[in-house]
Amino acid sequence: MLTVNENFLKLPGNYLFSEISKRISAYKAEHPEKSIIPLSIGDATRPLSPAVVAAMHKAVDEMGTTEGFRGYGPEQGYAFLRETIRDKVYSPLGVDISADEIFISDGAKSDCGNIGDIFGSNNVVAVCDPVYPVYVDTNAMAGRAGEYDGTRWTDIVYMPCNEKNGFMPELPVRTPDIIYLCFPNNPTGAAATKSQLKLWVDYAVKNGALILFDAAYEAYISEEGIPHSIYEIDGAKECAIEFRSFSKTAGFTGTRCAYTIVPEDLKFGGASLNKLWNRRQCTKFNGVPYVVQRAAEAVYSEQGMKEAREIIDYYMNNARVIRNGLKNAGLTVYGGINSPYVWVKTPGGVDSWSFFDKLLKEAGVAVTPGVGFGPEGEGFIRRTGFGDAEQPKQAVERVTRII
Amino acid sequence: MLTVNENFLKLPGNYLFSEISKRISAYKAEHPEKSIIPLSIGDATRPLSPAVVAAMHKAVDEMGTTEGFRGYGPEQGYAFLRETIRDKVYSPLGVDISADEIFISDGAKSDCGNIGDIFGSNNVVAVCDPVYPVYVDTNAMAGRAGEYDGTRWTDIVYMPCNEKNGFMPELPVRTPDIIYLCFPNNPTGAAATKSQLKLWVDYAVKNGALILFDAAYEAYISEEGIPHSIYEIDGAKECAIEFRSFSKTAGFTGTRCAYTIVPEDLKFGGASLNKLWNRRQCTKFNGVPYVVQRAAEAVYSEQGMKEAREIIDYYMNNARVIRNGLKNAGLTVYGGINSPYVWVKTPGGVDSWSFFDKLLKEAGVAVTPGVGFGPEGEGFIRRTGFGDAEQPKQAVERVTRII
Repeated sequence: MLTVNENFLKLPGNYLFSEISKRISAYKAEHPEKSIIPLSIGDATRPLSPAVVAAMHKAVDEMGTTEGFRGYGPEQGYAFLRETIRDKVYSPLGVDISADEIFISDGAKSDCGNIGDIFGSNNVVAVCDPVYPVYVDTNAMAGRAGEYDGTRWTDIVYMPCNEKNGFMPELPVRTPDIIYLCFPNNPTGAAATKSQLKLWVDYAVKNGALILFDAAYEAYISEEGIPHSIYEIDGAKECAIEFRSFSKTAGFTGTRCAYTIVPEDLKFGGASLNKLWNRRQCTKFNGVPYVVQRAAEAVYSEQGMKEAREIIDYYMNNARVIRNGLKNAGLTVYGGINSPYVWVKTPGGVDSWSFFDKLLKEAGVAVTPGVGFGPEGEGFIRRTGFGDAEQPKQAVERVTRII
Repeated sequence: MLTVNENFLKLPGNYLFSEISKRISAYKAEHPEKSIIPLSIGDATRPLSPAVVAAMHKAVDEMGTTEGFRGYGPEQGYAFLRETIRDKVYSPLGVDISADEIFISDGAKSDCGNIGDIFGSNNVVAVCDPVYPVYVDTNAMAGRAGEYDGTRWTDIVYMPCNEKNGFMPELPVRTPDIIYLCFPNNPTGAAATKSQLKLWVDYAVKNGALILFDAAYEAYISEEGIPHSIYEIDGAKECAIEFRSFSKTAGFTGTRCAYTIVPEDLKFGGASLNKLWNRRQCTKFNGVPYVVQRAAEAVYSEQGMKEAREIIDYYMNNARVIRNGLKNAGLTVYGGINSPYVWVKTPGGVDSWSFFDKLLKEAGVAVTPGVGFGPEGEGFIRRTGFGDAEQPKQAVERVTRII
């Protein structure tokens, strides 16, 4: 008789965003006259840029002709896109990444989850707390998390990121084999400096550990000296995989394209992770739509880069309005400088959900309770810079009024 | 120290198609003046139809406007596509499938592989021999295949499909928990009747086994009475998952869209497979591009269905030319009636690779050696109906001349 993967049955319900929408719906039902400003979801809202739209139209036309039609593409992605990424993303950073180390995919979420296929189930996994839930849940599904005790998983190494350590994880007591790092960080908005990352690279190399580096928000870095890629750090090619995405860089959340760097120098126990990932992708994936890869390529044209910059500036201006506005209102705020996320301390030490309720009911502003990202997120809420430029201004006014 | 998934290291090299192209390249290098007719690859060659192209253009335009822009879509796919599939695919068959049982994905290959995430690693897996390699390789990666002995995996139950049994698998001696069935079949082209499928549904229900039914080629069924969906068989909703694809139905091999049916009645050990798959997809997948889902929806418009039919008829005419031509040349042929694949017995009992070489060198025709799909494929070659209509005619002439 078929048995299911028992690890799935250990997963707690994914209640965060459903609980948020339940509370919003309940409030709306009671107060249909009130408008709610949504600042909770990390999703692009600006349209695809003209350069991207033009490239997609062209590719669609090609697909409609016998000469231009493309069937199965390479599972790793077309050379035109991999080489463009090499030349336009990594070369300018002075980082030598070959096209064969770049794997195009349908999303960083898919890759962050699927990468686990190539690792043994006995590896010790370390994550930051608070954390993007996908890192934890996918490892729980694969049997690497142990049991869920109602708050944490017994086998996961949690690295607290809080005000005391400036939201930078410290080297853990128990040595992990796999270390998830996300900079600029979701949800705290913290960005790591080169020396902060160097510490992790050296630690990973010394311990034979692998860093899974999520750089989905690198395009939001505005300060000098903050590395955009972990490969700017010496030694990272021997210990790190990097995830990149077009989602937040070019508004591709509904268009689906990302890429993952698996350096050829990454060898563990004699096995090449590049070869294993290539085998995984060739066996369980069939590549990204041709039209989407052409759209992604267009992001790197002169016009495309200019337009992408404008979209990011738009969101970052929103984040700045939120950050400065709430600061002026007397709140303690983090992030919003190298990241679209602003991490706000609740006033008077109230818990995340109570402040969530207060903002919803008294100010008509929806946010994300920090505790939803992990126990260390308690006492914080997350706001995003995505959305229409009018919303942050109104939200700041409303919040200022009730504090 | 990081350990890799040791099961990956047991996988034999994926040599079939690389060996084919190596031999073709070597021959071409020696004989640059000779033209080679490629009949080996199962990939669409006809352009996307006008209805599909128009729908994609419209969706691209929407994505370029603030009002029409779509960010993250539902991981399961948009309701407009799921409901269209329910109404246009299953309702006409008299099969009651709800939209919540339909999961849109980027490909049947992805789903066939990823579905294993929700099963325990101790399940016994049965496959046909010859077989689409993805079923076997993905289970080997997950540790369900045992060891590779140079020909077969020690823990996989192989069900021979040969001339003696009309290429229909027989109920195996060792009872499996997971049974892969693909009808119309790749590579043999065999199609199962209702009574043949009923035998498997009854067997699965009786033994608490799950059928993974790959219906990627259902649109090629030309004979009456051949079921297009396993759910046409009573009891299948309690024991079967069905994989469907737009790849071979509407030429989406480079556009990437498929769907998988996980009925709500599928319960094993008290766990709902629909809920587990939903959780898997929500955690490790972020949906299919909006523009691609609109393209897929257009396949079911009146114009879209007519155009898809024309493309399929085009390929099936190719298959008919190959089938009849080789039959007239004195070869024994199977398939090509409800499937784009023609399964050809090698003359005089020569092995697959020898006949491959003969066809390549003497006739300038490239095919796929049957043994590449499993030991029972020895003594056969596979030809496909994909490609330009002139190719099969020329190929038949050339082959006839040398036999």
